[in-house]
Amino acid sequence: MSIKIGIYGYGNLGKGIENAIRQNRDMELVAVFTRRDPATLKIATEGVSVCHVSDVEKYVGKIDVMILCGGSATDLPVQTPMLAKQFCVVDSFDTHASIPAHLAKVDAAAKEANKTAMISVGWDPGMFSLNRLYASAILPDGEDYTFWGRGVSQGHSDAIRRIEGVVDAKQYTVPVESALTAVRNGSAPVLSARQKHTRECFVVAAEGADLARIEKEIKEMPNYFADYDTTVHFISREELLRDHAGIPHGGVVIRSGRTGAALENRHVIEYKLSLDSNPEFTASVIVAFARATHRMYVEGNYGCKTVFDIPPVYLSPKTSEELVKALL
Amino acid sequence: MSIKIGIYGYGNLGKGIENAIRQNRDMELVAVFTRRDPATLKIATEGVSVCHVSDVEKYVGKIDVMILCGGSATDLPVQTPMLAKQFCVVDSFDTHASIPAHLAKVDAAAKEANKTAMISVGWDPGMFSLNRLYASAILPDGEDYTFWGRGVSQGHSDAIRRIEGVVDAKQYTVPVESALTAVRNGSAPVLSARQKHTRECFVVAAEGADLARIEKEIKEMPNYFADYDTTVHFISREELLRDHAGIPHGGVVIRSGRTGAALENRHVIEYKLSLDSNPEFTASVIVAFARATHRMYVEGNYGCKTVFDIPPVYLSPKTSEELVKALL
Repeated sequence: MSIKIGIYGYGNLGKGIENAIRQNRDMELVAVFTRRDPATLKIATEGVSVCHVSDVEKYVGKIDVMILCGGSATDLPVQTPMLAKQFCVVDSFDTHASIPAHLAKVDAAAKEANKTAMISVGWDPGMFSLNRLYASAILPDGEDYTFWGRGVSQGHSDAIRRIEGVVDAKQYTVPVESALTAVRNGSAPVLSARQKHTRECFVVAAEGADLARIEKEIKEMPNYFADYDTTVHFISREELLRDHAGIPHGGVVIRSGRTGAALENRHVIEYKLSLDSNPEFTASVIVAFARATHRMYVEGNYGCKTVFDIPPVYLSPKTSEELVKALL
Repeated sequence: MSIKIGIYGYGNLGKGIENAIRQNRDMELVAVFTRRDPATLKIATEGVSVCHVSDVEKYVGKIDVMILCGGSATDLPVQTPMLAKQFCVVDSFDTHASIPAHLAKVDAAAKEANKTAMISVGWDPGMFSLNRLYASAILPDGEDYTFWGRGVSQGHSDAIRRIEGVVDAKQYTVPVESALTAVRNGSAPVLSARQKHTRECFVVAAEGADLARIEKEIKEMPNYFADYDTTVHFISREELLRDHAGIPHGGVVIRSGRTGAALENRHVIEYKLSLDSNPEFTASVIVAFARATHRMYVEGNYGCKTVFDIPPVYLSPKTSEELVKALL
């Protein structure tokens, strides 16, 4: 019997979930929930209901796992605890500093309702977090490094778009190759923000806008750009659409550690992602963990989980015996 | 209270376990068991008993986890099921094709005795297997690649040493850089054994030995060398000791997969290890999983497990809350 999935929010991530479900034969999309008028929303899968979020209660008992595709700033802090009272849920909450508080709220809601919830699933937080945990457990004496990119940062692109005179913009986070090489060689350097990443901006300015002022405002923007070497390219709207339509991303988690009687031996563990589509990859991770969420629920393992709590075997549609034979 | 560890077999791996335990403050080495005369064995840790294997029963109840450091060919198939009747055990059984049968035997023994056992822990099988599982669960449409090296293969070095006229030898397995590049670029090539790895041999020959015959015998050896491009270097015993004393290894697991409505987006997941000391890194992985073995035992979760069954949080000495805060 297939696992019945609901999608709550139909932006880039929701569309990625819809595609990912079609790649997993043990999963079935039951309904998409939207805040828009459902009549205006055309989804890709035939025969699947499109409902207003206010109708979600009608689906209690008809959906095994509700996948929440809203944003971390205002949607998920409200939606995940609310929906965990009626459904098993998975979200991709990614405000790192607020994860413990979010976890506590979702855990209380899920436990009260005997549901299983999983938060902060994706690649960072998510697969990168898992690799930090495995690597630091294996090599207790060592240093962790995370590099992001080359990829589009939605937050930084949005920050540029808020500047007066900017029509559209795309910002790429780029790891500094020499820093990466030093870390891979095991030299365990201490690196500032500026030494790890550069920021490359492609900006469409309004006609007649003061380009020098826009460039200065970007480069001096605190938190977002001031601590980095930033390059600004002004391009036409056509060039932006033609050359920067995709949402690629990726990055590397590296742990460099030492073993031996005198800690004389060096080991480097590296986990690297190169992604054509950030939302589609995030969706693929979420769908695998939705399977695990359902399994834990069936076992009566309720409350809020993270990727750290999941036995890897729960992520695959294959049996334990098949996995041991094929992959161990 | 610390986790009490026994080491069963004191070769390179056993010594690695001893070092790794010293890097983990929640672990304590209680005893080392050897088939040799214990009086002749000097170990590195003060105050730890060195016992003959025939005395192992005296330690029932005094050791939380027994780590088995014997070989996969003849030691572990006998020792792991035998010791799982008296202790929680961890081994690094690495004969891939025989893992299901080994698992069944160890599982029966451990379940009968209400013990927890874990087999095939290390990096391959082990961390590489885990990464194959995670990556294939995330990207169901895709191809897996495993490259080993550059590193010393003990099995291939031993095979060369058995040739008449060979005094000593070391064989390095080397991944083919162009194949790696093609896989990383997401082109998903079909690769033969020869296209993935080359083999580089450093051989010390006996005085007056027929070097041409030795080189021919190596290059034509079935299974080991005949399917690869093999290079043979004859060197002196001094050069072998000076330049090839270490036991470095490593490798890469890559999954290249596709997502999207028309599978138009490509993603590459790569897990890479660069290890100065193969046995010390293997030992470090085993010690982290020994911690998990003990935790599962305390929870009453008996029987034979693999790395696929372990919630990652069990590998760390830190609490779930600490891990979420620091690493998620």
